[in-house]
Amino acid sequence: MKGLIVSKIGGNIAESPEKLEAFCKEFAASPSPKILIHGGGVLASDIQKKFGIAPNMIDGRRVTDAETLRITVMAYAGWCNKNIVATLRKYGCNAIGLAGCDASVIQAPKRAPLNGIDYGFVGDVTPACVNTGVLESLLSAGLVPVLCSMVHDGNGQLLNTNADTVASSVATAMGASLNCVFEFAGVLQDQNDPSSLIAELSYDDFKALQAAGKISGGMIPKLENGFKSLSHGAASVNIGKTTLKI
Amino acid sequence: MKGLIVSKIGGNIAESPEKLEAFCKEFAASPSPKILIHGGGVLASDIQKKFGIAPNMIDGRRVTDAETLRITVMAYAGWCNKNIVATLRKYGCNAIGLAGCDASVIQAPKRAPLNGIDYGFVGDVTPACVNTGVLESLLSAGLVPVLCSMVHDGNGQLLNTNADTVASSVATAMGASLNCVFEFAGVLQDQNDPSSLIAELSYDDFKALQAAGKISGGMIPKLENGFKSLSHGAASVNIGKTTLKI
Repeated sequence: MKGLIVSKIGGNIAESPEKLEAFCKEFAASPSPKILIHGGGVLASDIQKKFGIAPNMIDGRRVTDAETLRITVMAYAGWCNKNIVATLRKYGCNAIGLAGCDASVIQAPKRAPLNGIDYGFVGDVTPACVNTGVLESLLSAGLVPVLCSMVHDGNGQLLNTNADTVASSVATAMGASLNCVFEFAGVLQDQNDPSSLIAELSYDDFKALQAAGKISGGMIPKLENGFKSLSHGAASVNIGKTTLKI
Repeated sequence: MKGLIVSKIGGNIAESPEKLEAFCKEFAASPSPKILIHGGGVLASDIQKKFGIAPNMIDGRRVTDAETLRITVMAYAGWCNKNIVATLRKYGCNAIGLAGCDASVIQAPKRAPLNGIDYGFVGDVTPACVNTGVLESLLSAGLVPVLCSMVHDGNGQLLNTNADTVASSVATAMGASLNCVFEFAGVLQDQNDPSSLIAELSYDDFKALQAAGKISGGMIPKLENGFKSLSHGAASVNIGKTTLKI
């Protein structure tokens, strides 16, 4: 779809009332056809603690047993999704909140145990899992899909997944521009200096910065996902104000 | 819409894996255009207890403060809604889960304090609150809306409500047949005798049975809602296997 923008917001926006309000106001005002993607990991970890369950994360991925799945569904598809949709409506955005099971917008296989680790009820999402026809119908009807990172296997099982992967898969499948909105202005040369923003980043530059230890942690999978989207069909990719170039 | 059926399931079905599975299989097999309505009060009360909050119910209505609202949204729109949708998809039903904020399918005002009681974040739903155009578009696209009893005020505020009221309002607004599926076979002359099922119940008979103490508790608002739907535009109303007659 021409001019389609897929925006992904991180937990620091989705789960902060003030930041969410500001983001929704700006997002609603954009005249382009658009899709919003979010997770809800901060709230899920908070509920786990209240339930007396220690979150079990391996390399930033949540090991999801049956009780953790219930909690992530409640956090992502429940509070986070409906709070975002209600806030968007306040600003006149005709939002419709969806999990992957809804109209089967994302159906994905359960992840097989990886390197001896069983991640439990976790789905492996690729661009081929995205039901582009349903998204196009909703967009054509003037609706703005708000998708949380919860998918299903088509056989009654909900599966937890990662919002960055959902966003890059949806942008790739739809040939859209991917716009990751997060806590920093963009990719920085020096994480302590906001003025060191990199306006355009090539894959080779990314790898050089990573080797020099200047890019680390959660930024690495975010950039890997972004470059993958760009080379597989996304129209453009922005990580904050940094534009990725192949 | 001709032949439209609005089914409402109670917590005893929505929150029991075996009963939900059986219900979804049967519901999916029905060829009529259809809408499913549910709540999630049992799960909400369970989470409240885990959070150390005592559920505050007045005449069967949940007093909903900000924290209780978050919990009800997580229960109704999160786990209950998505678990039902994923289960329906297993049986080939093209379900789409919605709260009232989604595509603004139900926008309602916040309830004003009543007889000195402030129910908090609770919405008052009437047939006029139902966005029949959106429901018709989804049904025409071959989708089966699965609506939880969570609405919004159009100004960013989610509001808790009652699934029986949502079901009767949707059936009335859509001119549909209302089908309340619950733990009993239908309205019974004697609650301890399943063979005392009343096949057809008039409003006068209902009032006579109520006066005689044979109908009590939660059945009274259910029947009041049902008769109201029938007199205001629903095509027919069934409470289990009991058909209401004006």
